[in-house]
Amino acid sequence: MKIAFIGLGNMGAPMARNLLKAGHALTVFDLNTQAVGALVEAGAMAAASPKDAATGAETVITMLPAAAHVRHVLTAEDGVLAGIAKGVPIIDSSTIDPASVKAFAALAAEHGNTFVDAPVSGGTGGAAAGTLTFMVGGTAQAFEQVRPVLSAMGNNLVHCGDTGAGQGAKICNNLVLGITMAGVAEAMSLGEALGIDPKVLGGIINTSTGRCWSSDTYNPFPGVIETAPSSRGYTGGFGTDLMLKDLGLAGDAAKSVRQPVYLGALAQQLYQTVSSKGDGKLDFSAVIKLYRKDGAA
Amino acid sequence: MKIAFIGLGNMGAPMARNLLKAGHALTVFDLNTQAVGALVEAGAMAAASPKDAATGAETVITMLPAAAHVRHVLTAEDGVLAGIAKGVPIIDSSTIDPASVKAFAALAAEHGNTFVDAPVSGGTGGAAAGTLTFMVGGTAQAFEQVRPVLSAMGNNLVHCGDTGAGQGAKICNNLVLGITMAGVAEAMSLGEALGIDPKVLGGIINTSTGRCWSSDTYNPFPGVIETAPSSRGYTGGFGTDLMLKDLGLAGDAAKSVRQPVYLGALAQQLYQTVSSKGDGKLDFSAVIKLYRKDGAA
Amino acid sequence: MKIAFIGLGNMGAPMARNLLKAGHALTVFDLNTQAVGALVEAGAMAAASPKDAATGAETVITMLPAAAHVRHVLTAEDGVLAGIAKGVPIIDSSTIDPASVKAFAALAAEHGNTFVDAPVSGGTGGAAAGTLTFMVGGTAQAFEQVRPVLSAMGNNLVHCGDTGAGQGAKICNNLVLGITMAGVAEAMSLGEALGIDPKVLGGIINTSTGRCWSSDTYNPFPGVIETAPSSRGYTGGFGTDLMLKDLGLAGDAAKSVRQPVYLGALAQQLYQTVSSKGDGKLDFSAVIKLYRKDGAA
Amino acid sequence: MKIAFIGLGNMGAPMARNLLKAGHALTVFDLNTQAVGALVEAGAMAAASPKDAATGAETVITMLPAAAHVRHVLTAEDGVLAGIAKGVPIIDSSTIDPASVKAFAALAAEHGNTFVDAPVSGGTGGAAAGTLTFMVGGTAQAFEQVRPVLSAMGNNLVHCGDTGAGQGAKICNNLVLGITMAGVAEAMSLGEALGIDPKVLGGIINTSTGRCWSSDTYNPFPGVIETAPSSRGYTGGFGTDLMLKDLGLAGDAAKSVRQPVYLGALAQQLYQTVSSKGDGKLDFSAVIKLYRKDGAA
Repeated sequence: MKIAFIGLGNMGAPMARNLLKAGHALTVFDLNTQAVGALVEAGAMAAASPKDAATGAETVITMLPAAAHVRHVLTAEDGVLAGIAKGVPIIDSSTIDPASVKAFAALAAEHGNTFVDAPVSGGTGGAAAGTLTFMVGGTAQAFEQVRPVLSAMGNNLVHCGDTGAGQGAKICNNLVLGITMAGVAEAMSLGEALGIDPKVLGGIINTSTGRCWSSDTYNPFPGVIETAPSSRGYTGGFGTDLMLKDLGLAGDAAKSVRQPVYLGALAQQLYQTVSSKGDGKLDFSAVIKLYRKDGAA
Repeated sequence: MKIAFIGLGNMGAPMARNLLKAGHALTVFDLNTQAVGALVEAGAMAAASPKDAATGAETVITMLPAAAHVRHVLTAEDGVLAGIAKGVPIIDSSTIDPASVKAFAALAAEHGNTFVDAPVSGGTGGAAAGTLTFMVGGTAQAFEQVRPVLSAMGNNLVHCGDTGAGQGAKICNNLVLGITMAGVAEAMSLGEALGIDPKVLGGIINTSTGRCWSSDTYNPFPGVIETAPSSRGYTGGFGTDLMLKDLGLAGDAAKSVRQPVYLGALAQQLYQTVSSKGDGKLDFSAVIKLYRKDGAA
Repeated sequence: MKIAFIGLGNMGAPMARNLLKAGHALTVFDLNTQAVGALVEAGAMAAASPKDAATGAETVITMLPAAAHVRHVLTAEDGVLAGIAKGVPIIDSSTIDPASVKAFAALAAEHGNTFVDAPVSGGTGGAAAGTLTFMVGGTAQAFEQVRPVLSAMGNNLVHCGDTGAGQGAKICNNLVLGITMAGVAEAMSLGEALGIDPKVLGGIINTSTGRCWSSDTYNPFPGVIETAPSSRGYTGGFGTDLMLKDLGLAGDAAKSVRQPVYLGALAQQLYQTVSSKGDGKLDFSAVIKLYRKDGAA
Repeated sequence: MKIAFIGLGNMGAPMARNLLKAGHALTVFDLNTQAVGALVEAGAMAAASPKDAATGAETVITMLPAAAHVRHVLTAEDGVLAGIAKGVPIIDSSTIDPASVKAFAALAAEHGNTFVDAPVSGGTGGAAAGTLTFMVGGTAQAFEQVRPVLSAMGNNLVHCGDTGAGQGAKICNNLVLGITMAGVAEAMSLGEALGIDPKVLGGIINTSTGRCWSSDTYNPFPGVIETAPSSRGYTGGFGTDLMLKDLGLAGDAAKSVRQPVYLGALAQQLYQTVSSKGDGKLDFSAVIKLYRKDGAA
């Protein structure tokens, strides 16, 4: 299939490579010419603009930092909608707010195109391995239409509901994540202050009702889980500023439906404090710094 | 071994039965004569007072609602310390604050006795099946001393650290639990308001980074997990008022070491609101009532 | 002076009337033709569009619900910037976020115009009486330039700092307001539950260190302050949804500078809960409903 | 009148002096013999124990750090109840929880004595000047009985309701205080980050709806109010650990009546963080350190 891929960042680049490996013909676009060059070496064709990439494509995929970028890539003079043929689906794998998704879907519909939200989880590792989870919003028909393309990049394709539901599901998962991580940080630090060995406490939580990914896989206390960012100085992993972005999306989505998110709003302030102290690039489990007496992390 | 068991409530009674089954000679005391009668039928002897029960015992076990009860049972004129022989260990399996544990241990030490905190997790089911987890605080020697007795009631004995560390570990686990449950309630309700099917959302969270016991085993949204209290009207399970008690203990323990518990304090207010509306007896996952638009649960 | 006034809502209409009373020549625009008609009867001229209103004006004033409206009124084909002469100042008295203000000021500068943010406090009463407070952002020169016009509508003109600082100051004040109101609601409800007479408690707070406008002028407990919305069923006053909007602006402004707003974020969730229960049109002091045992307010 | 005064700390000592000045015959007790010596020089008699002080007294006053001290002073073998004559009122001006007050009142009633809670506001300045506010709990008759004694120490005597209502009122006021101070700290720091001059922002808040004692009298931003602790390095004033104690009492009182205190619980965590970082002795307005980017205060 002839596919246009726009946005070759940390996630987009390996996703695009998996499309090539699956035998698709790929035209790529990114402002970063180095990223484009690497994909061209791998067999892709370079486009001069989103419009150029979309022209003649049978599917268009976007993977961008925020809703404003998606809007620009779609609607600019040299944007996707200026080049795309009627009936060609647009898959957006960026993480953005559901309200923007609905607006973009309406714009696409005016041009005779389907716009499907398909944000991912699984990180850069999953992107490289082709084992991403795609959370897809759109009609059942649209989901079936994009399934073959997505299956080259991920192995868990979930149809979450109508347009925007993919983003909604991802936001809700990351809302839980942001809360549980800060909650585990709180409890591990309290345990430390009470004189309990962190490994023992981690072991108890992980075999009891407090069990969660933030404790058993990604524990924020150094040394409890050897493979977690906390055990390598909070480097790598999922940055605090990215968690802040996602909790901001959750807050905005909640506001749009007048839904309270008490713990989410408070967790957001905790990560904001971390970022405000200059640690926004550290893994989000560095939130434990706020709790430990010496600010250690 | 000759064991005194004081406190035959929902947890204490089945724990005492398992000691009988393991062949121990048991003397029991409770203000509830019916509970005492049932144990006597099962082979225990009834004592007239905690002092009477402790006299001649080789181990004393207490399982009581709160620290004030433990204090009374220990120090009253007809209390345990008035009857116990020097060198006999006292095991307290109540859930109380670490500071009280330390005070009781000091009192016991004055009388020549070791006081071990050994709160449990596993609920009434685990108590009946003899599969409780015991979180034990005390010296390594004390832990070894009480291990044979505890192993008749539980299959997971964890030495958490010095006196009080058992309570500390339980409190920290339940702090995480109280936070994650409210967090999952928040996210599931947001998902509902955004139009996402709760079962689909539950499925995504449970295979992603939001994964936790509060979602994959005890999800607060009705119908997501068929065996959870939420699927039977929030009956049975772990009552909101019990969660309130445990978050209160966490708050007190945190205060004693000047340790902030932001999310725990907020979660406590959420459960307090549930209780204040008259739903304190419902399972603690009923906290989702605060979030769903129609107050449904 | 020849003034264009765009936006004749509850606040804008009485403000425009005071400009007429001060002898200014006024051209007005609003989508609501009835509102325009009332002003024309009072001596204003009706414009066919913002562009039309701005053409020939010596000062342009906008008073609109949100940043999106300001953007449209400025930049639409028939917008202000299409008609305004170079050097004419634009005064925006809407309550919007500082980042948007800066964007609009940049747009205006490209056209050779100064854009001054000048949000108000004082409510519809102050608007009618001409006693508003204007919080002004811009250069000292711009402040001096718009002072004569503003003084016809308000009696307290404060130069808060550079472009956006007027909005920033208003947002910060309303952040305090949203927090103190919920805090007073919390304390008055606790006092009620403890059996203290609300009028006695109000009296103590108002003569002690808890003293604040939310208690001594606008107490949320019915009957404590006879002139407050709480004493007339939470009607009139400042709607919960407007408070929600302002706390949302505070949250956005805080996010833009990575500044934590713990209490503001939590207060926002409390008002969001009120709104989510269908009471968004009630005065924001109705937040006390969340606290009182019977949900009374 | 013959009065016994127990507890000669920073508040108690000047209160006792004012009783002497008013011509009362005073017998005093404190563990600190230096404090006792100073009062004896001023004309008081020293007692060997609370029992000794209470023997023959017509009124007994206690001013102690916490409920545990009051309990000991009342019930010890050489305590007040061992010496006091029937019918003599006991006035407790300590700040403690309403539940303890009720327990002490019941104990006193068994001995034929009235126990009146009468916590104060006004600080050491008000104690020295005899201008304290007394918040009194008890029957109307008991209030009239203690009024002449209290009027020698304060000029604002408020009957708040039945036994415990005086403590309840003080707790509710300080709950508002703890919240508004943190709220003002949040807003002033946000304003600073947005580039608004703190004095200008303080001026706007103090003449607008955000007006409160925490802003117009005790503003936490240095230099806004010259006489506030913030303008002298957060020394003097009302210590963070004392605010923590009072918010703890508010939380306990709220728990006892199942009343949520969302903002109070969050504010408590903020002050706890300050204390946890080693700044518990600083004035409570130092909570602004948590918000300002450089941790400055």
